Amino acid sequence: MPPLECVPNVSEGRRPEVVARLVAAVTSVPGVRLLDVSSDPDHNRSVLTLAGTAGDLRKSLLALYETALLEIDLTRHEGVHPRVGAVDVVPFVPLGDTPMEEAVAAAEALATEVADRFGLPVYLYEKAARRPERRLLADIRRGGFEGLAAKMADPAWLPDLGPDRPHPTAGATVIGARFFLIAFNAVLDTPDVTVARAIAKKVRESGGGLPAVRAMGVHLASRGRAQVSMNLVDFRRTSVLTALNRVRQEAEALGVRVMETELIGLMPHEAAAGVMRETLQMPSFASDRVLESRLLEEGND
Amino acid sequence: MPPLECVPNVSEGRRPEVVARLVAAVTSVPGVRLLDVSSDPDHNRSVLTLAGTAGDLRKSLLALYETALLEIDLTRHEGVHPRVGAVDVVPFVPLGDTPMEEAVAAAEALATEVADRFGLPVYLYEKAARRPERRLLADIRRGGFEGLAAKMADPAWLPDLGPDRPHPTAGATVIGARFFLIAFNAVLDTPDVTVARAIAKKVRESGGGLPAVRAMGVHLASRGRAQVSMNLVDFRRTSVLTALNRVRQEAEALGVRVMETELIGLMPHEAAAGVMRETLQMPSFASDRVLESRLLEEGND
Repeated sequence: MPPLECVPNVSEGRRPEVVARLVAAVTSVPGVRLLDVSSDPDHNRSVLTLAGTAGDLRKSLLALYETALLEIDLTRHEGVHPRVGAVDVVPFVPLGDTPMEEAVAAAEALATEVADRFGLPVYLYEKAARRPERRLLADIRRGGFEGLAAKMADPAWLPDLGPDRPHPTAGATVIGARFFLIAFNAVLDTPDVTVARAIAKKVRESGGGLPAVRAMGVHLASRGRAQVSMNLVDFRRTSVLTALNRVRQEAEALGVRVMETELIGLMPHEAAAGVMRETLQMPSFASDRVLESRLLEEGND
Repeated sequence: MPPLECVPNVSEGRRPEVVARLVAAVTSVPGVRLLDVSSDPDHNRSVLTLAGTAGDLRKSLLALYETALLEIDLTRHEGVHPRVGAVDVVPFVPLGDTPMEEAVAAAEALATEVADRFGLPVYLYEKAARRPERRLLADIRRGGFEGLAAKMADPAWLPDLGPDRPHPTAGATVIGARFFLIAFNAVLDTPDVTVARAIAKKVRESGGGLPAVRAMGVHLASRGRAQVSMNLVDFRRTSVLTALNRVRQEAEALGVRVMETELIGLMPHEAAAGVMRETLQMPSFASDRVLESRLLEEGND
């Protein structure tokens, strides 16, 4: 297993040819594995899931920044998802037994090089944050690209690295280290974004809802639907199924229903196994109960 | 992927040392992979899940018969699961693109050798059946080991191969070929087996219940519970979750509840993914949404 996962979120989800060039950039480094690409036209955002060593991921991400800076102009970008950068946020995630320190070190090394090479203001967040008030992405991102120049004028929001004003077309970038996160969206049978926002407010931890859940309501113009977009930052505290059932319950109270759900990126095996155990009341369920998983395992004969 | 799965069911689920010797026997053939062992003391039965080539599985199964005939005496065997043999039933299952004919051929080759070498009466069932009335295992097994001599006295129930009377301690054996089957049990919060039987009758296809579902009610003395024991013979027609929800519904109508469920052997990835899709209303869920599954895949970078 590679030591690190890296999940760059880029502000482009509408032009497939641009997404293809961004993908080509990250995969230009041989050691890096591309595990997933999730693009959404309403969010106007793509989430790439990569795995590799710190060194290979750094090279891969530098290629991504280079391409994104050429291809993405935030002054002409619109989308329902908050963002401050062309390469909006780049979290490093330890896989397997990798210590968090290794993910933090990878974030810091990338941050330094990105600031130097591209003249981009960099904020460090979560486990890589240098100030406690920068742990939460939502706080760094508040105000968006459009509010970035004003925000940086406040000394409390000077970037951690790089120039003290936004890049004219690429804004800033947020780099950090965190544990695995499940990005999970529930599409409602209403186009009314106020309903989605009301549900999100009830469900998220900051509103007194479920632990380790972040949520916002957004409008999906291309589908004529509203969506509750969630981040489950610790699926052991709140599982995908628990979060969904709470959304279902709050939706019902408002007279709407969940039509379908989607994952952005991947979920760990253990999160899926947990859903199986919960749904089937099957405490013994684990990936070793799945034929193909057993067949994939090596040396068990 | 190996071409065939083989799932021998042996009439021993109480003596771990005997199960260990049976496992040692099947794994004495280097090419054979042991994917799972599920033993149950109330059923007094163990289900081994093996994978390999027809030739390797044949050698492995011959070793299993040899050991089982030494270790298991059906005249002293009791258990809630119906059985006619020490090695009760041996299905071959095609994996991946393997044609069913290959599984049938493996069943026939093993049947011939088992009859010759061990003087065991053999019935061929399901896709390997030589007579239509022998397709269903339940029909062959009706009357159990205790009724076997009387059954064989009827010319309609002469074995397909081997002697026309039961082996004194090992009875007969049923060998065949079939598609993948999910063996799935729901434990009730009652010890009353008549309730489990009533639920099983409503749920199973032969009682007008769910398609491709076989079910029986059994008593689990060691747990003080009754159990609905199911075989889902085509999970695309009736999924694990659909079967469970029907059991839950019938149980509720009788004032009892499902306490937990268990899998005997394995389920295919696609069956688990189907449960995830259904539970989470997530049409896009597939194993490629699971981090570790993506990491296990080769050459996707």
